[in-house]
Amino acid sequence: MQQVYLDNAATTPLRTEVIDKMAEVLRSNFGNPSSTHSFGRSSKSIIEQCRKNIAAHFNVEASEICFTSGGTEADNLVLRSAVRDLGVDVIITSKIEHHAVLHTVEHLAKEFSIDLKFVEVDEQGHVNISHLKSLLITSKKPLVSLMHINNEIGNILDIEQVAKTVKSANGLFHSDTVQSIGHYKLDLAELPIDFLAASAHKFHGPKGVGFAFIRKNSGLRPLIIGGDQERGLRAGTEAVHNIAALDEALSIAYKNLEDEKAHIKTLKRYFIEQLNANIPNVTFNGASGHIDKSTYTLLSVRLPLKPEKAAMLQFQLDLKGIACSKGSACQSGSTQQSHVLSAILSHAELQKPSVRFSFSIYNTKTEVDYVVDVLKSLV
Amino acid sequence: MQQVYLDNAATTPLRTEVIDKMAEVLRSNFGNPSSTHSFGRSSKSIIEQCRKNIAAHFNVEASEICFTSGGTEADNLVLRSAVRDLGVDVIITSKIEHHAVLHTVEHLAKEFSIDLKFVEVDEQGHVNISHLKSLLITSKKPLVSLMHINNEIGNILDIEQVAKTVKSANGLFHSDTVQSIGHYKLDLAELPIDFLAASAHKFHGPKGVGFAFIRKNSGLRPLIIGGDQERGLRAGTEAVHNIAALDEALSIAYKNLEDEKAHIKTLKRYFIEQLNANIPNVTFNGASGHIDKSTYTLLSVRLPLKPEKAAMLQFQLDLKGIACSKGSACQSGSTQQSHVLSAILSHAELQKPSVRFSFSIYNTKTEVDYVVDVLKSLV
Repeated sequence: MQQVYLDNAATTPLRTEVIDKMAEVLRSNFGNPSSTHSFGRSSKSIIEQCRKNIAAHFNVEASEICFTSGGTEADNLVLRSAVRDLGVDVIITSKIEHHAVLHTVEHLAKEFSIDLKFVEVDEQGHVNISHLKSLLITSKKPLVSLMHINNEIGNILDIEQVAKTVKSANGLFHSDTVQSIGHYKLDLAELPIDFLAASAHKFHGPKGVGFAFIRKNSGLRPLIIGGDQERGLRAGTEAVHNIAALDEALSIAYKNLEDEKAHIKTLKRYFIEQLNANIPNVTFNGASGHIDKSTYTLLSVRLPLKPEKAAMLQFQLDLKGIACSKGSACQSGSTQQSHVLSAILSHAELQKPSVRFSFSIYNTKTEVDYVVDVLKSLV
Repeated sequence: MQQVYLDNAATTPLRTEVIDKMAEVLRSNFGNPSSTHSFGRSSKSIIEQCRKNIAAHFNVEASEICFTSGGTEADNLVLRSAVRDLGVDVIITSKIEHHAVLHTVEHLAKEFSIDLKFVEVDEQGHVNISHLKSLLITSKKPLVSLMHINNEIGNILDIEQVAKTVKSANGLFHSDTVQSIGHYKLDLAELPIDFLAASAHKFHGPKGVGFAFIRKNSGLRPLIIGGDQERGLRAGTEAVHNIAALDEALSIAYKNLEDEKAHIKTLKRYFIEQLNANIPNVTFNGASGHIDKSTYTLLSVRLPLKPEKAAMLQFQLDLKGIACSKGSACQSGSTQQSHVLSAILSHAELQKPSVRFSFSIYNTKTEVDYVVDVLKSLV
């Protein structure tokens, strides 16, 4: 059976070069980077070179990159320490953040008895900047956490405008950039962002590794305590093979960026055209249907299906070999609504099943044709 | 130049089978275990099979194994949540714990304003059980954290006696078993231990992955918040390749345990004999010189060297291709004493340089001869 993987926002297949790099490091450099002998220094030199390479993509200093076990840990490290150690008196976020941010700030607000405020988003998922400004003026030291690219509806935050707005209010700005790093370039010498979180497996790297960008002299302290790794910000022996693979994946992603972006954007445009042509009354969630207002990597489709058919949609797509992600569709019999779609759609809109398709360089026009045919047959 | 790696307590070379297993998973199973489609289910099935395999080694349920990014995170997860969520009113530990425990409990005691008490250890590093009992009776809900195998001096805790002692005082018992798992078997159906921490790279697995054993119905809550991975105990996409490699490494370690133990123990015995025969006044720290009272994997040697020679010892060993770890020797010009040796040795003893040699199946008698020759030439 044909297998079509269109769930690249959940995770991506690894590039062959990334697997090869990892295997090479595993075979040749097993030393503990904290050891001072030659085996240790060899591993240390790998991770410090990776740190430099990564920092260079963002125009920052190597010491501002802190390796973690992934995006979620990076979000947790930054958010917890900012609240605990930096005198934050209010957290401002949105209801369409990833759970790594949303659940974390909910916990932190309770634990530290501080206010948690939600900036308004419109029915397309766009953050209301005027509302953000009004929330900022009531706080002495706000922490704002807003994601760059939304993982469910693909909206692109105007990260420069938000960063400058937060900065002018003397606030701290963290952005979950898990869906954008490796797909968009960010010049952090220009953008007044304090903290970012990234995850290797979203750009054809391995799972279990990511990094936080932490602006110099931030005052952050560790989430995981123990040894002095990562300049005291993150204890635990560094996963040298995973870090080397992260670096390799990110380097290739940025080297190939324009070519791969063009390929994927063409696919997405074609997918939208074909859906519109073949499925009457199909709609798109958030900004994802606007080719220039959303990430090229993702399309969130709302299908004109009746509830009795909607319940089986994911199951049927899976049977046809199509891997994608549910929006408001059911999962394993239960009816968990997407918190993102719930925040922006009407009750009537939520009754229709939404499906997130997310793309990579490995997808083809033929695959899109196949998926459109299958969807057509189901509607 | 001959390269001799005798720092296996810091980290171990990976077994070829482990690298192969990892590469296979990276190539064939990149799906996100949280995805419900076939790619996701395939990854989910790998990590759940690994969880079962690992649980079986310890005679526990699969649901009691929680994957983490390593031993340090596992220690942090358990210790922080026990103090925050389980009503712990005093933490009892020792001054010879790993920093992943020691620094963490120091932070927790301050943060939660509870007492931190240290059980006495003698000049050989043995925990004073009578003193532990006396500390326990003054607390309603004590949390005891004592490591099974000491990473610097190789002492083996009587973990059964400690576990029963803590249990009879209605306490919680956590043990950092980073140096013992993969080298010793533990039957957790028999031992009343609440929590353990393990790290794959100490038994020929990869860095960046480990697990916590968390006894059923513990009431623990996550350190890293976000998605519902690991039954809500640890958010973040699971590193499937690392988990598969951990399982492979642990399975081989336990399958080969008796053979490899015999080989390594013979080496250690030979090393002790040769040192005694060739270096007058050589001594051994902790219990490490007693072949049956310490782990077979480690020997901490105190050399009869004058301070002016001691400062250069690690450097000279490194020049001769010998990778080992400092005890009280200098590191990169600074004079950081080992906190473990400082806790058990006299001022005079600390003036002599200590070196930790730690072994694996890949070491040979020829290597031991070479190291003894080099040490002889330096003394």
